[in-house]
Amino acid sequence: MRILVVNVNTSRSVTEAIGAQAAGAAAPGTGIVPLTPAFGPESVEGNYESYLAAVAVMETVRAHPGPFDAVIQAGYGEHGREGLQELLDVPVVDITEAAAGTALFLGRSYSVVTSLDRTVPLIEERLRAAGLSERCASVRASGLPVLELERDAAAAVDAVAEQAARAVARDGAEVVCLGCGGMAGLAARVGERTGVPVVDGVTAAVKTAESLVSLGLSTSKVRTYAPPRPKRFLNWPPPQAR
Amino acid sequence: MRILVVNVNTSRSVTEAIGAQAAGAAAPGTGIVPLTPAFGPESVEGNYESYLAAVAVMETVRAHPGPFDAVIQAGYGEHGREGLQELLDVPVVDITEAAAGTALFLGRSYSVVTSLDRTVPLIEERLRAAGLSERCASVRASGLPVLELERDAAAAVDAVAEQAARAVARDGAEVVCLGCGGMAGLAARVGERTGVPVVDGVTAAVKTAESLVSLGLSTSKVRTYAPPRPKRFLNWPPPQAR
Amino acid sequence: MRILVVNVNTSRSVTEAIGAQAAGAAAPGTGIVPLTPAFGPESVEGNYESYLAAVAVMETVRAHPGPFDAVIQAGYGEHGREGLQELLDVPVVDITEAAAGTALFLGRSYSVVTSLDRTVPLIEERLRAAGLSERCASVRASGLPVLELERDAAAAVDAVAEQAARAVARDGAEVVCLGCGGMAGLAARVGERTGVPVVDGVTAAVKTAESLVSLGLSTSKVRTYAPPRPKRFLNWPPPQAR
Amino acid sequence: MRILVVNVNTSRSVTEAIGAQAAGAAAPGTGIVPLTPAFGPESVEGNYESYLAAVAVMETVRAHPGPFDAVIQAGYGEHGREGLQELLDVPVVDITEAAAGTALFLGRSYSVVTSLDRTVPLIEERLRAAGLSERCASVRASGLPVLELERDAAAAVDAVAEQAARAVARDGAEVVCLGCGGMAGLAARVGERTGVPVVDGVTAAVKTAESLVSLGLSTSKVRTYAPPRPKRFLNWPPPQAR
Amino acid sequence: MRILVVNVNTSRSVTEAIGAQAAGAAAPGTGIVPLTPAFGPESVEGNYESYLAAVAVMETVRAHPGPFDAVIQAGYGEHGREGLQELLDVPVVDITEAAAGTALFLGRSYSVVTSLDRTVPLIEERLRAAGLSERCASVRASGLPVLELERDAAAAVDAVAEQAARAVARDGAEVVCLGCGGMAGLAARVGERTGVPVVDGVTAAVKTAESLVSLGLSTSKVRTYAPPRPKRFLNWPPPQAR
Amino acid sequence: MRILVVNVNTSRSVTEAIGAQAAGAAAPGTGIVPLTPAFGPESVEGNYESYLAAVAVMETVRAHPGPFDAVIQAGYGEHGREGLQELLDVPVVDITEAAAGTALFLGRSYSVVTSLDRTVPLIEERLRAAGLSERCASVRASGLPVLELERDAAAAVDAVAEQAARAVARDGAEVVCLGCGGMAGLAARVGERTGVPVVDGVTAAVKTAESLVSLGLSTSKVRTYAPPRPKRFLNWPPPQAR
Repeated sequence: MRILVVNVNTSRSVTEAIGAQAAGAAAPGTGIVPLTPAFGPESVEGNYESYLAAVAVMETVRAHPGPFDAVIQAGYGEHGREGLQELLDVPVVDITEAAAGTALFLGRSYSVVTSLDRTVPLIEERLRAAGLSERCASVRASGLPVLELERDAAAAVDAVAEQAARAVARDGAEVVCLGCGGMAGLAARVGERTGVPVVDGVTAAVKTAESLVSLGLSTSKVRTYAPPRPKRFLNWPPPQAR
Repeated sequence: MRILVVNVNTSRSVTEAIGAQAAGAAAPGTGIVPLTPAFGPESVEGNYESYLAAVAVMETVRAHPGPFDAVIQAGYGEHGREGLQELLDVPVVDITEAAAGTALFLGRSYSVVTSLDRTVPLIEERLRAAGLSERCASVRASGLPVLELERDAAAAVDAVAEQAARAVARDGAEVVCLGCGGMAGLAARVGERTGVPVVDGVTAAVKTAESLVSLGLSTSKVRTYAPPRPKRFLNWPPPQAR
Repeated sequence: MRILVVNVNTSRSVTEAIGAQAAGAAAPGTGIVPLTPAFGPESVEGNYESYLAAVAVMETVRAHPGPFDAVIQAGYGEHGREGLQELLDVPVVDITEAAAGTALFLGRSYSVVTSLDRTVPLIEERLRAAGLSERCASVRASGLPVLELERDAAAAVDAVAEQAARAVARDGAEVVCLGCGGMAGLAARVGERTGVPVVDGVTAAVKTAESLVSLGLSTSKVRTYAPPRPKRFLNWPPPQAR
Repeated sequence: MRILVVNVNTSRSVTEAIGAQAAGAAAPGTGIVPLTPAFGPESVEGNYESYLAAVAVMETVRAHPGPFDAVIQAGYGEHGREGLQELLDVPVVDITEAAAGTALFLGRSYSVVTSLDRTVPLIEERLRAAGLSERCASVRASGLPVLELERDAAAAVDAVAEQAARAVARDGAEVVCLGCGGMAGLAARVGERTGVPVVDGVTAAVKTAESLVSLGLSTSKVRTYAPPRPKRFLNWPPPQAR
Repeated sequence: MRILVVNVNTSRSVTEAIGAQAAGAAAPGTGIVPLTPAFGPESVEGNYESYLAAVAVMETVRAHPGPFDAVIQAGYGEHGREGLQELLDVPVVDITEAAAGTALFLGRSYSVVTSLDRTVPLIEERLRAAGLSERCASVRASGLPVLELERDAAAAVDAVAEQAARAVARDGAEVVCLGCGGMAGLAARVGERTGVPVVDGVTAAVKTAESLVSLGLSTSKVRTYAPPRPKRFLNWPPPQAR
Repeated sequence: MRILVVNVNTSRSVTEAIGAQAAGAAAPGTGIVPLTPAFGPESVEGNYESYLAAVAVMETVRAHPGPFDAVIQAGYGEHGREGLQELLDVPVVDITEAAAGTALFLGRSYSVVTSLDRTVPLIEERLRAAGLSERCASVRASGLPVLELERDAAAAVDAVAEQAARAVARDGAEVVCLGCGGMAGLAARVGERTGVPVVDGVTAAVKTAESLVSLGLSTSKVRTYAPPRPKRFLNWPPPQAR
């Protein structure tokens, strides 16, 4: 089984970290193929960047020669998963949803701890749109930008653990999801500090994707995610994505 | 006052129809500037196309020399409005939301009649994300593709009026919103057939935009729609959008 | 275009302030006709008074010789708008709903700051009944009674701005609505203090009413707001309202 | 214990029927005092009439010499209960809410069958405002006006039983509430026809009121239902209500 | 009228206290029959114990020779009421629901104060499943275990009143429900301390049960609570419950 | 890895079918241990039976000598999972929730097709309590009792496929979950008939359990699922469960 794990930003170091995280969770026989978008921002922290990243991920996956058995979109709270589902026949797993879907089996409610406060609304909206928000106790921001989280792991653990602890004490969270692709690798340390299960989106997505492939299940094509109709495009795709 | 009215697809005839519709609703002194995206699909009927259109609209508006006082995104149920709000200081009005926001003052509940069934979920999601779905009785599909609606007005009136009548009789709708940019101009005839107020999104958006400008109000910048942070972009924007 | 702007209480000074506020927002060619109810309380701060005011507004508008093109009910969180819609063929706009409907275009969520804590539940209920509550972050009370707000503008600004700032900082509000007819004129100063768009219900209602009239749209009569059936009334209307 | 049972319309025959229905359900030692409003419409079938009836009920109860231990507002889906709660220290029970509150103990969900379709929205709103709508499967209309229901009991049973049966078969209702004060006395026959428990609002309200009085409990005065503040009234109350 | 009042734990002192509380609220002519389950835990503070108690209550009531006219399940937030409703033809009243159903008539919102924090989720779930959670402002824990509450009434009043006061001040509660069978008898003192109506579940349930019996109403048998189908059981019931 | 797969009824043939289904989905190295409760009903089709089954499952698992790495409760819409989570340190997966949690990754909404209509409410409640109901389009009944489904596979496929097709056509479902442990093995044939992904709860639960174990994650113990407090039990457990 080969799984494409697509970073949403164009920072190769983030792609590498995500790839390593995914590989560590993969079952024997699962090949992880990390992918960086062919265009877009170096980090995604808002709607403009997220919409652009969504399109970049779609075009990059479309241009990928394959074959692959599943695709993971490795950005937290980002737009685009629905479009990938239209374009592909294989299962598509968003790490935001994989983390939440996993957390539901571990406690009555979960919180997400993300990077900047401005990304909180995006995550809330994605969870709501996915039908996974009812048991979301809160989405909290650590205050650290995406690239900062990656650069200074110790500071990241401190900032994330502090908000995770507040989520447990004040919001009634029983599980914490690490709400940023750049938090790959922090789960164990945040778990020790808070005493609750900590879910990493990338590893959760790998197991979800493996499960779907193993069950022989993929995206329903009867309505929302039917393939795009044949259509003319003006000036698209751009040269870099061909 | 100058209002950019941005089509979401790249069909110039649709841009023209939308522009004429907007101009007909504009107050004296309001200039309507119709705009066609610099890239993207000829019609938008699904998530892949809608995400691409969102980015195309954003880049096209960004590249527009201006000045303008407000921007209308003239696609029904499409992604992207949040990104435009981050990029701009002037008010941004989505026609989906303008129609729903207008309908709330006209009856206890409203329905939307759109083009194809596959776009129904997109409209439902946008209304929900905008906080305008609670009084939405239903979103119904006429079964006609976007470009068909434009081509054959008589058939469009028939198909839309039939679903509008069902929305009133079966779903409890008291108001009907025309759920497609390509339906510009059908409102009066559908209203005659159904006996309920019929809201056209483009004209509703023009009045909403004029109102916001006249009140001196624009997008809040304290959180969700704060300007994007300074950041490096790889291979972006594409040549055609510069 | 002539718009009746009906105060809900019987304090003429409040009527004058509301009328001036409305006139300042009106487009050229829009005539504002301020109206004081023929009976009822000098201020409305609770359900008993609000129900009475609702009936007084209805009878006063019914007895008005006209003509007029729209009616604005200028009380925040008050009962009665549905009854006016049954009685009239022209559009009816409640300032609570106009403010909320406007706020939805300006930020992801809004809060209302009102007079006394006891009026908070009324506003919450009206927003819920209008299908506009989903993005309401909170309704907060300044602690000042309606007539106090009118009497001491400086104290009003202080009290309202303090709660508005809390709404932004604690409740996640991105927009603030001034939740009392008696707050006419405070918007600019509260906006300066808080850095978010501040919506005044009366001016928002004027633009909403103008928009509806200009679009040729009025209340749907197919169900909820159908005209009252012919019926005998005992001892009604009272002499003062004839 | 003396309970005022206040009709919302000014038809004395309805008052009598309601009074008899209440008396039949009262415990030994409970005195039922039927009351007709001093002004208002002969039947209540819409918002204008309902708002007027609300005020008429309040003024009529205020002018009643007493003493009494509880008040029942015997109109289905009508405005006003919150105002009575402000004015009185004794418990106030609305028959819409008493019926729903009783139905919750009898099945997983209930439906209401009312008179005209135009009153359906009023009932839905009242149930929602009372926090009792979550298990409401549907509100259905028999198509018979209030005064018709009273005049022809056989036709009323037929029309109501038909809608009740549909509520059970199509909407999943397990209990039916008779949604009109004028349906007093139909419960047994509708129950026989449908095989589900049928709740009459007036009798349910009598038992609810007796229970509250017996438990020594009455309306909380800390916030929403605090007594009105001292205030000047213009031209109110009208002569007939003094 | 004979009402079985079934304790959910096997502490006879709790059964006695509950029985006395119920008897104090019963109307003349109502006989209260307190019952202790034939097996199970000495107190119920979590899901495992609550599920076991549910089954113990069901088997104990099934084995009871009768006759009786109604059954009260006297545990707060416990599982099982639906099963009893399937097994019995007489009305079944859960004290959690009776308290909430009573509170709705006394104020706009209510809070529950219970024993340990770990029982809060159970109560929240039961209120939600019963359709009574919409007006629940909060469920708060006093921190005292069930048996402690019974042992030291003064400490219990202090701990419960403190949380009740916070519910009023911070959560907007206007009514407080005592959320534990072991709190029988504290209502008056907690009410004095907080100034809001305090509802005791056992007494509320007695009045609810009496009302249902008096109205001739019992559980609907058309769907959810239809009698169990005839079926073979392995090793059940256990010797002690026969 | 060893996973206990616990049937909820005492029919050994059902246990065998479930065990075979689970084994077919298990990864290499995963051992499936099918378990039949030590007491309880031969099939579970209602609340009384479901509560009893919940307790039987708990006592049977408690008495199991182990070791095991996860437990699957293989009944659809049954009570009890929360109790197992309190008793165990290893992950607990309910097949109702595993199916729904899997379906969310395959389409925008899913329906469940179960055995008898009387079990529909149980499934709806369990999905709601698990926070997985928001995207549930409907729960439909095939009309076949549990043991019948097992006995006649061809009839079962027909009955289930018919309801599945209606769920897609009328309720907007894009995925179908087989809502009964006794439907093990029907997924492929129902999928062929309906053209949408069909999720079998048992196989979905096996993959979910494997994923959780592989990620090193288990139930949060900080609140809802903390271990039961030490306590005395009367007459429990029964001889057969020791």
